[in-house]
Amino acid sequence: MSASTNDMSYILAPNPEARGLSRVVQGRDQTGALVDINVVEERPLTIFLNASEIVTAMTIGDYPEYLALGFLRNQGMLTDADTLLGVDYDEESEAVVVRTKQVTEFEGKLEKKTRTSGCAVGTVFGDMMEGLEGLTLPASNISVSDIYALSHKINQTPSIYLSAGAIHGTVLCEGARPLVYMEDVGRHNAVDKVAGWMLSQGAGAEGKLLYTTGRLTSEMVIKCALMGIPALVSRSGFTAWGVEIAQQVGLTLIGRMRGQRFMCLSGEERLIWDETP
Amino acid sequence: MSASTNDMSYILAPNPEARGLSRVVQGRDQTGALVDINVVEERPLTIFLNASEIVTAMTIGDYPEYLALGFLRNQGMLTDADTLLGVDYDEESEAVVVRTKQVTEFEGKLEKKTRTSGCAVGTVFGDMMEGLEGLTLPASNISVSDIYALSHKINQTPSIYLSAGAIHGTVLCEGARPLVYMEDVGRHNAVDKVAGWMLSQGAGAEGKLLYTTGRLTSEMVIKCALMGIPALVSRSGFTAWGVEIAQQVGLTLIGRMRGQRFMCLSGEERLIWDETP
Repeated sequence: MSASTNDMSYILAPNPEARGLSRVVQGRDQTGALVDINVVEERPLTIFLNASEIVTAMTIGDYPEYLALGFLRNQGMLTDADTLLGVDYDEESEAVVVRTKQVTEFEGKLEKKTRTSGCAVGTVFGDMMEGLEGLTLPASNISVSDIYALSHKINQTPSIYLSAGAIHGTVLCEGARPLVYMEDVGRHNAVDKVAGWMLSQGAGAEGKLLYTTGRLTSEMVIKCALMGIPALVSRSGFTAWGVEIAQQVGLTLIGRMRGQRFMCLSGEERLIWDETP
Repeated sequence: MSASTNDMSYILAPNPEARGLSRVVQGRDQTGALVDINVVEERPLTIFLNASEIVTAMTIGDYPEYLALGFLRNQGMLTDADTLLGVDYDEESEAVVVRTKQVTEFEGKLEKKTRTSGCAVGTVFGDMMEGLEGLTLPASNISVSDIYALSHKINQTPSIYLSAGAIHGTVLCEGARPLVYMEDVGRHNAVDKVAGWMLSQGAGAEGKLLYTTGRLTSEMVIKCALMGIPALVSRSGFTAWGVEIAQQVGLTLIGRMRGQRFMCLSGEERLIWDETP
């Protein structure tokens, strides 16, 4: 199952040298000495669904179209029933407009909701949970040696994390190969950008694995499940509800992945134990 | 300036033994062996401002009233102009209602906004930035030895972080004394709970310092500044915009605080360099 550890042929990898993603600021260290430090950028991006302003996200700024698409999709605001007409990013107004052929079901709900009690964004979580009903993730095999290889490759990949820190990464993987590596200020944005890429490329989720540097909270687990990806791996910890939802939908959930150590909380039947440390 | 390093007399400290904040789940480690792991809880809490549903936050569940109050205050939805009538938490419906004597200015805006383009929550960030205009944080002295002492004490304090991980902490401090230590699944919730505590106690911000385990992003810096606290310290990193806003309002910003090392990005004139490693 394992590919070569040197297989770094990403479809999309971080570009830490890209203009506008980080900048050097001056600070003083504990001795009072002046030091130059490379720091990630952070800027607002307002996401519109047709005429409705949905949210302003804080983002590093790359792939705004993927972020908007993936966000709307992962929140259940954009579904398979909606026909996409276009995604337009305007740099000056720091906004992305996602346009669909017809008014979405979500916009209908939003209008109804805002007429009664103010704002519908707060209730979206319920909609996300609803999307999980009846969901079953496909069976697949995941070899432990592939997980080790992935973790090693991802940690070695030049990234904004390595050059500036204070950023989260999410990587779409298949077997031992990392395919698409997105980074962002918030851990949810990085996942949403991967979802937006998948949606725009028509990429299937079967046999894929999602690696993230962020914690495995309920929302992270729900997003992975709604994306149809059967396995979620993180170097960070997890919450009880995250574990509970993963068990409910049969997602393979692995946390605290560091070096040769990890903890599998759910979906262990997918694991092939071909390597023990 | 420095108090004794053993001065652990918190007004409010974490209670890792409290029922309902963590639970034991079973997982498998990298050898396939079954292991019991203590994991933080996470549950939804819907915050209402009078009749308006504002947001559903994911929280560990303690101090829902402080979280709601602090959230509304830090988002600029609740101001000094509003007279608080009460804060009611209903466990069954997982909701908190903050009631004011008169309809708040924010609700008026919300109503106007939702009539035109859907939802006002997305635009709140602009309101937060507006709140910074003309803001000047008070002069104060912060000795480096106090910062070292605080960091040491906080790391030694029994917490959910130490017993379960995957959680953020925020501590309101004065001199070398940590006063109020809040923890939550999201780093913003922990800060909001401190703000809610301050608001309900009428506690002043002068001479205080805020310590957080989370990253120093724009929103974190804005919240600290709006709370009137002149210094913000974190063991994590920072974003360029976070640094920029701190410089703009004259906030002392310290990041990457680990052991005897730290980086001061702004407001160094408050620092008294009485200890060098």
